[in-house]
Amino acid sequence: MNDKQVKEITSKDKDFAKWYTDVVKKADLVDYSSVKGSMIIRPYGYAIWENIQKILDKEFKKTNHENVQMPMLIPESLLQVEKDHVKGFAPEVAWVTLGGNNKLEEKMCIRPTSETLFCDHFKKIISSYRDLPILYNQWCTIVRWEKTTRPFLRSREILWQEGHTMHATKEDAMKETLRMLKIYEDFQKNVLAIPVFTGEKTNKEKFAGAEKTYSIEAMMYDGVALQNATSHYFGQGFSKAFDIKFLNQDNKLENPYQTSWGATTRMIGSIVMVHGDDRGLVLPPRIAPIKVMIIPIGNDEKIDKALKEIKEDLDNCKITYKVDDSNKTPGFKFANAEVKGYPIRIEIGKKDLENECITIVRRDTLEKTKVSVSDAIIKVNELLINIQNDMYKRALERRDNMIYYPNTYDEMKEIAENKPGFIYTNWCGNEKCENKIKEDLGLKSRCIPFEGADPTGDKKCICCGKDAKTKIYWAKQY
Amino acid sequence: MNDKQVKEITSKDKDFAKWYTDVVKKADLVDYSSVKGSMIIRPYGYAIWENIQKILDKEFKKTNHENVQMPMLIPESLLQVEKDHVKGFAPEVAWVTLGGNNKLEEKMCIRPTSETLFCDHFKKIISSYRDLPILYNQWCTIVRWEKTTRPFLRSREILWQEGHTMHATKEDAMKETLRMLKIYEDFQKNVLAIPVFTGEKTNKEKFAGAEKTYSIEAMMYDGVALQNATSHYFGQGFSKAFDIKFLNQDNKLENPYQTSWGATTRMIGSIVMVHGDDRGLVLPPRIAPIKVMIIPIGNDEKIDKALKEIKEDLDNCKITYKVDDSNKTPGFKFANAEVKGYPIRIEIGKKDLENECITIVRRDTLEKTKVSVSDAIIKVNELLINIQNDMYKRALERRDNMIYYPNTYDEMKEIAENKPGFIYTNWCGNEKCENKIKEDLGLKSRCIPFEGADPTGDKKCICCGKDAKTKIYWAKQY
Repeated sequence: MNDKQVKEITSKDKDFAKWYTDVVKKADLVDYSSVKGSMIIRPYGYAIWENIQKILDKEFKKTNHENVQMPMLIPESLLQVEKDHVKGFAPEVAWVTLGGNNKLEEKMCIRPTSETLFCDHFKKIISSYRDLPILYNQWCTIVRWEKTTRPFLRSREILWQEGHTMHATKEDAMKETLRMLKIYEDFQKNVLAIPVFTGEKTNKEKFAGAEKTYSIEAMMYDGVALQNATSHYFGQGFSKAFDIKFLNQDNKLENPYQTSWGATTRMIGSIVMVHGDDRGLVLPPRIAPIKVMIIPIGNDEKIDKALKEIKEDLDNCKITYKVDDSNKTPGFKFANAEVKGYPIRIEIGKKDLENECITIVRRDTLEKTKVSVSDAIIKVNELLINIQNDMYKRALERRDNMIYYPNTYDEMKEIAENKPGFIYTNWCGNEKCENKIKEDLGLKSRCIPFEGADPTGDKKCICCGKDAKTKIYWAKQY
Repeated sequence: MNDKQVKEITSKDKDFAKWYTDVVKKADLVDYSSVKGSMIIRPYGYAIWENIQKILDKEFKKTNHENVQMPMLIPESLLQVEKDHVKGFAPEVAWVTLGGNNKLEEKMCIRPTSETLFCDHFKKIISSYRDLPILYNQWCTIVRWEKTTRPFLRSREILWQEGHTMHATKEDAMKETLRMLKIYEDFQKNVLAIPVFTGEKTNKEKFAGAEKTYSIEAMMYDGVALQNATSHYFGQGFSKAFDIKFLNQDNKLENPYQTSWGATTRMIGSIVMVHGDDRGLVLPPRIAPIKVMIIPIGNDEKIDKALKEIKEDLDNCKITYKVDDSNKTPGFKFANAEVKGYPIRIEIGKKDLENECITIVRRDTLEKTKVSVSDAIIKVNELLINIQNDMYKRALERRDNMIYYPNTYDEMKEIAENKPGFIYTNWCGNEKCENKIKEDLGLKSRCIPFEGADPTGDKKCICCGKDAKTKIYWAKQY
């Protein structure tokens, strides 16, 4: 095999950071631009994002959410209405100060998130309980002025969706917050084949202005955490600050209860870092823009006939595919199919056809099977399911092997220094311990899971030794 | 009918501008925001945009275009590379000068269009004729610092798509420019039911940096022109300025040939202004998010049974519908269905059902038909086609009645001052005459059509009397 492309990829165990940038570049997901901190999402990377959008958007609409489009610019005074929110975001926004050649009377930031814009609108359209719930979503680009950036993981410009909803009761809003978290969780598991922990963020780590933040936390191949989506319960914080009121069923004025929830192109980074290997990208079938890459080896009548039959079968089953009929060598094409991570590759060669068969290669295990042309479609359908399931199982097993349960702070330190992964401990709930663990061990709290979060063992905080309130995950993070 | 909502709409013949804002507001397409010059696209308006996106995107992909995402910010130095381009756009961009609290070393503008960003990328990925053509498209938001704004028509933030392509030959690039113009033209006619003139813009009106600009020009109800999409041929202007080179088939270095083409949410404004009436919005079926609004009048077993049957039939035919079962009066619901412009409304009432029928109302003519429940789906299918065709025909007839063919400048002046519409005349091709007509009559050149543009009659320019080179359309514009 002419696998120069593959060999140019750094080994992931040798230098994971370099491996990551090699893969996102060589698989043609992104390119760097002259715009510092911003990336170009190339057609193959954007096709993955389009699939993510299509699947999530369908889930949002099924649950009665409607898409809208708010302005992209937020006047400074609007950003300032909710005090915690502005404190959290003002240091990291991009400010527009000039329109053409004229200085603006009031500077405006490019939205880092749109709670303030939605609230400004909600104030105008909400007056009665009959107007509630309002269930909105927006697909757009946001800007956060990050200092160090990495493709998909941390970028100045981020493509995302942000849901913003308003409810007549606390219970309804909390239900929505958790419903959307569940949609994200299911999407990660079932579509991206990524196992996640879901739970509540600590007070220190919650969203600026939220009462509660919930997140889904995935573990990358190197044991580092990636927060893949968040869902926030705001209570009445913003609705009071923005003076949004509705006449409730008892004919009394009340401030509505709010949520917001979002997920970004960062998810593409987590697909790469959970599933990729030293030969490049490995895409779960359900998110892969092209599920099958067909590579005819040479060309004669028999090959053309087999190709035609297979294409027809794939079309009938609505399985996306491409045929690589470029003038490159077969070896080059095989390697390219591996770097790009197409779930399945079909090789149609003269020799195989003499024995009435073709070769099917699954990308995740590189396992080869020979089947007859007419059985190819059955095998492909079977493999697409198996690959999806096996990728999830392997990711789950790998992750679970990298979770540690120390009983003492010394043990925790030892693990933090030597073993990549998540650490699950008792915690007193005090921010002081959270800060100490961050400073000493470089670990941040991930989330307090919904289940099994009661303190265990001696029921003392791993850090201060006082009574623990809960269990919690810790990890290094992207 | 309780048609307070309808009565609140200004008559379009009395005050067209007021009528327009009444309709876009009352049909819940947009709302104003605290952000000056930017609008909020509400769920109903955004659903129209989603339909536009879905249909156009499919056409783009059918013609082998791929979607990408470029950065949103352009460093000043990058905007300046192509001289005509920066001259055209610099006065109307929003400049980011601060990141968080820090002054940027180089200010960056929010993209007003992305030729410079695409060229910056093309330079890196093009090296051989084998890399060409590159056929990219991007869906995104752009910003142009307009002084006076109107929902959809002129806004500081604009949702659009911008295609950017590179080709090995002039012919290929020109073919692409015209192919995309044709896609826009067909979309306008067949989907939006809007007749358009297609043709070339004058030198004065072409896009900053383009060699040739082609446009599709629609006439609004008030006779004013709206440029609904443009397609540009750049030649090698940008590719030379950006030093983009490829090895051609003769093994020689050459600059590739470029196009770009775009269409915006402005198209929604033109749907409103071509088809709307004094009762509100009228949507062509093919672009309507909800094709049928069902209004049960009262509720009893018979009504429920009829409703169920009709819903099943619509589901089977994949026709989008909604049922208005709110606690408003039937009259209010009828009026609301008219203001929102749903192509068809079905009224299911007790009285009708006693005669074994229901009432179907088409929005464009308000004509009512009574049919049996089981025949409803046949009627709906028939009406959806007829409404679409009739709306186009009426728009075409109205437009053609508002085109004038003066033979002298005095005649032209007389028409410009008294008759709304387009004026078609001979023209010498000189910018002086174009400027004079703009100053004297307030008319701008629209386009030189592809066919029938040879001078006619005395073959003299309507303005200066010198030999005419072509015929051309003139009109007031939005």
